[in-house]
Amino acid sequence: MAGRQAVKAYLDLVSQACRAMLIFLKHNKIPHTVENIAIRKGQHKTPAFTKLNPMQKLPVLEDNGFVLTESDAILKYLATAYNVPDHWYPKLPEKRARVDEYTAWNHTNTHINTSSIFLHEVLLPCMGQPTNPENFEKVLADLDGTLDKLENMFLKNQPFLCGDDISLADLLAVCELIPTCLSSHGLEMDILKDRPKLLSWRNRVQSALSDSFDEAHSVVYQIREKFTAKLSPC
Amino acid sequence: MAGRQAVKAYLDLVSQACRAMLIFLKHNKIPHTVENIAIRKGQHKTPAFTKLNPMQKLPVLEDNGFVLTESDAILKYLATAYNVPDHWYPKLPEKRARVDEYTAWNHTNTHINTSSIFLHEVLLPCMGQPTNPENFEKVLADLDGTLDKLENMFLKNQPFLCGDDISLADLLAVCELIPTCLSSHGLEMDILKDRPKLLSWRNRVQSALSDSFDEAHSVVYQIREKFTAKLSPC
Repeated sequence: MAGRQAVKAYLDLVSQACRAMLIFLKHNKIPHTVENIAIRKGQHKTPAFTKLNPMQKLPVLEDNGFVLTESDAILKYLATAYNVPDHWYPKLPEKRARVDEYTAWNHTNTHINTSSIFLHEVLLPCMGQPTNPENFEKVLADLDGTLDKLENMFLKNQPFLCGDDISLADLLAVCELIPTCLSSHGLEMDILKDRPKLLSWRNRVQSALSDSFDEAHSVVYQIREKFTAKLSPC
Repeated sequence: MAGRQAVKAYLDLVSQACRAMLIFLKHNKIPHTVENIAIRKGQHKTPAFTKLNPMQKLPVLEDNGFVLTESDAILKYLATAYNVPDHWYPKLPEKRARVDEYTAWNHTNTHINTSSIFLHEVLLPCMGQPTNPENFEKVLADLDGTLDKLENMFLKNQPFLCGDDISLADLLAVCELIPTCLSSHGLEMDILKDRPKLLSWRNRVQSALSDSFDEAHSVVYQIREKFTAKLSPC
């Protein structure tokens, strides 16, 4: 990509969508620089950032003056505009449609459920608001239904969600389902612990992403440590 | 497309996603047959339909044995696999990314808000459950915020949401925002009535879609009449 400036990624790595974007950039060796925008410090609401993205949301991609929001769109744009292996977002219409099918479903299922778990297990207790057990039961039941579908309707007996090789679907899903949820008592909780098939899939995805996954994780853990320390009693 | 069977579309036209799919098939003259699956009669839960789509959701596309769910993915597949004009889903990465950006945003904004309006304005009253005024105020405020963003961050001063020509973004959005919401008193309510810029945009989209839009509408109105008559007191 001679003559192109490095892509600029505006990220806060507490966000799963931001982690997915960073992993994709690193794994595919797309030249990039990272601008850290700390949501907890309100840096997504400054006049400068609001000018860049009036939605005040992360992640944001800036590619030679082209500004793009929505992680789903960003990952598909990067896969198309940069020379990444086809398996990430296959050109064959039927194969591509499988990835689009999962990423559409992810918005209103996996993402909503794991966000609710994070809210009830981490954010509410950290803000001194006890979790309502009835609400939490409902959140866990919804997540359970989503994980059933993820396992039986997407993964089935394939190694990856959309077939034999890793795609954007696996990347977006795995960033929602990493074992970083903390219980309200500060104990680590893995929402996949009783699901050997999904655990094997997640291990397979992590192995395929190798270093880029571990790098994004190490930053997540650092930030979460600081974050939870500030928002004690967690 | 010699040698290909007509596409099969499984639809219930009370669903905005199903209307978008039908309009796209008709407007682009993609050979298709329609299987009507009446959600209100539980036809999406029969063993035969569950075998086709274990999610028990609509719409579903069947194209020569290839079965696909999620309207977003279906429309992008049809635009890619069939010979439709480029403006629907442009091949140029920057232009395509704008469409992907809106369709991703649509899932968690426009769609969620208009579904809530329909729930509070039509379904709950029809089931004899009065709308909680406080909840409804919140729903209207959320919708207002979404319409602000739709107008100022997507449409801006363009004729269509992603530029100079109509795209899948306009199709998905307009099907969410057609003037078919009824108030709980049975009066027609148009959620765009105080927004001249969005009204002009909607008129422009309807004109561009011409007959296909009107056909899908006429079916919607017929079904809604039957539907609301059955679920009186609406």
